[in-house]
Amino acid sequence: MKMEYLHTMVRVKDLEASLAFYKLLGLKERRRSENESGRFTLVFLCPEGQEDGTHDLELTYNWDGDEGLPSDSRHFGHLAYRVEDVYAKCHELMEAGVTINRPPRDGYMAFVRSPDNVSVELLQMGDPKPPQEPWASMGNTGHW
Amino acid sequence: MKMEYLHTMVRVKDLEASLAFYKLLGLKERRRSENESGRFTLVFLCPEGQEDGTHDLELTYNWDGDEGLPSDSRHFGHLAYRVEDVYAKCHELMEAGVTINRPPRDGYMAFVRSPDNVSVELLQMGDPKPPQEPWASMGNTGHW
Repeated sequence: MKMEYLHTMVRVKDLEASLAFYKLLGLKERRRSENESGRFTLVFLCPEGQEDGTHDLELTYNWDGDEGLPSDSRHFGHLAYRVEDVYAKCHELMEAGVTINRPPRDGYMAFVRSPDNVSVELLQMGDPKPPQEPWASMGNTGHW
Repeated sequence: MKMEYLHTMVRVKDLEASLAFYKLLGLKERRRSENESGRFTLVFLCPEGQEDGTHDLELTYNWDGDEGLPSDSRHFGHLAYRVEDVYAKCHELMEAGVTINRPPRDGYMAFVRSPDNVSVELLQMGDPKPPQEPWASMGNTGHW
């Protein structure tokens, strides 16, 4: 099954301070999305020459703060991978005993956790798949 | 200045459990190094077709445990970037007020932290540079 590494995400408390830091480091802003209803901003940064979307650092900025963010931690957001069939992959993981924390109800996105609780995002390649059971009616488990 | 995204590192408490998880997820082991004196193992994993070393997940396993690892955290290791001139980059960062937690004494490797204390590794492209002041005699600051 084809799979591609996409990006690493980290949550940031102060978007401007983080952008200043990462730009100073040498990254450039590749794209940005602001979500009014979810009240968050995503900024994708990459080195020059690696604009293919598989070398990004994604910054997540929650407009109302992020209380869960430790002040002196090597804090981690998630690893993201694109997969050929998000249903088949989740099925395979679940069969092996992995909890699907965020089932792919939308045929597009799922989250699981590593043994160390590192959050891993699985994204369907191309268009979302049509809704399908058991995923369509499966609730979330925990957080991710 | 040329720069390349390399990998994301996460610390793992149980290497076998983590390898089983990530392989199940679809990654393959690309390379591994065991460090007897440092008492740690590094395993680099990547998806099939992305073996170029810029899409890796690096697992760090400390043989004597890793007490700092929270049991329910989105734990993060570091982001790694290869840079054309590690001295010039560190100089630029330091001039801007960034602490060089691990100066490039060896002309090869440095660590800094993001505003959220996300650890970032800077690696010299190609061969290490000859030792040079002020780096050669600069001590570490904090941890990373």
